Amino acid sequence: MKVVIIGAGNVATHLVHALKKINVEITQIWSFNYQNAQVLAKSVNATAINSLKEIDNKAQIAFIAIKDDSIETIAKEIPAFKGLVLHTSGSVSVNVFLGLLENYGVFYPLQTFSKNKALNFKTIPICIEANNDQNLNTLKTFANLLSNHVVEIVSQERKILHLTAVFACNFTNHLYAISQQILEKNNLKFDILRPLIAETAAKVQNTLPLNVQTGPAIRNDKETIKKQEILLQNEPEVLEIYKILSSHIKKIKE
Amino acid sequence: MKVVIIGAGNVATHLVHALKKINVEITQIWSFNYQNAQVLAKSVNATAINSLKEIDNKAQIAFIAIKDDSIETIAKEIPAFKGLVLHTSGSVSVNVFLGLLENYGVFYPLQTFSKNKALNFKTIPICIEANNDQNLNTLKTFANLLSNHVVEIVSQERKILHLTAVFACNFTNHLYAISQQILEKNNLKFDILRPLIAETAAKVQNTLPLNVQTGPAIRNDKETIKKQEILLQNEPEVLEIYKILSSHIKKIKE
Repeated sequence: MKVVIIGAGNVATHLVHALKKINVEITQIWSFNYQNAQVLAKSVNATAINSLKEIDNKAQIAFIAIKDDSIETIAKEIPAFKGLVLHTSGSVSVNVFLGLLENYGVFYPLQTFSKNKALNFKTIPICIEANNDQNLNTLKTFANLLSNHVVEIVSQERKILHLTAVFACNFTNHLYAISQQILEKNNLKFDILRPLIAETAAKVQNTLPLNVQTGPAIRNDKETIKKQEILLQNEPEVLEIYKILSSHIKKIKE
Repeated sequence: MKVVIIGAGNVATHLVHALKKINVEITQIWSFNYQNAQVLAKSVNATAINSLKEIDNKAQIAFIAIKDDSIETIAKEIPAFKGLVLHTSGSVSVNVFLGLLENYGVFYPLQTFSKNKALNFKTIPICIEANNDQNLNTLKTFANLLSNHVVEIVSQERKILHLTAVFACNFTNHLYAISQQILEKNNLKFDILRPLIAETAAKVQNTLPLNVQTGPAIRNDKETIKKQEILLQNEPEVLEIYKILSSHIKKIKE
């Protein structure tokens, strides 16, 4: 099997290495930035291409792992490609390809990717969708080689998943970042919070978060909440976040 | 060494088992709820006591692991106790004991405790404070038997730590809970988010959260943000949380 990769960012990089691991041949890599394509291609003995006109029409799959608003533009540049074209976005409908390509679908890995942190692809949930049953079957077989957690998810559901990923990952990291800033302002190290962060995430691996909520807000511990609001009195925006989240936690209990 | 435990909740339970592990003798356990004291005492061959008047004055340490606003009341009930009295709260000053006891301090484990989830106490940061150098030395030696991560933290700093723990643990769990609710409303399972949650926490074990922020807000991806706000249009409170966190992430970048 031959695969072409369009993109050289975090998702493309992790995907390329996962494909290499299962001995899939990556023939070409294209990126908006040719040098990035070269670097990534070199690491897996693929060819970096400068123009999508050079795309290998004999490849069975082309992954488009680039920013959301460029997916359609890229699809328009490869009309002759008859293999399966897959984008990797959480929030873009499969219909972005409608009328532009023959065989297409979505391969959305529900995970956060950093360039310098290795990941076990086998444990990543892969949300798949395709424009017909035959392509869906091909995609399913292929995705199952990469991950033990492949699920068929239609575009509307995938948008919901992506939304919840923003809460559970991006916003969560931002709460960590707020903690980091508060600690640094008080000459304390973020280090001390790491075991707590790890355990908070570990806890919901076997339970549901609604069942394990702890803290002043769920106990309706007004005294502690008042004291903590005073600590934040010079940080009006962080105070607002504190208030709105505390109030929402209380409501969930009611 | 003999230790008395006042409290039978999550912190007391984990503490009792950690003490047992290092062969500290727990002589007595008291709780507002006598039955809870009995259950916990039975698990470690201690004696449940009905009244604090029966407290063993020969014990070297008494832990007060109960809710914040009862710590002072309890301290008033054990005036004859000459051992070291330690509360385990993040937000109560060490001075809660001033004028009530001779030897006192704080033993604050910076972790989230659930009754049914085992924890390695050795990895938990323990924040210690005492009313004089001698008690601090005793406490330090003792705490180092339980954990590899003992730090001296004064009351004002401990309040800051507790505040950041609310963000990094309680509020974070609430974001997981919001995701759970959105998924359930759309007949999707929380299960699929678990690897993402684990990785988000794992990522900041070696990096700082401000350096690894991802998602639509930090990319200023207005299109995706607009689409996600539309998905939340029937959930005004969750939408407000979405907006305030997205806006705060953008500001951090500036």
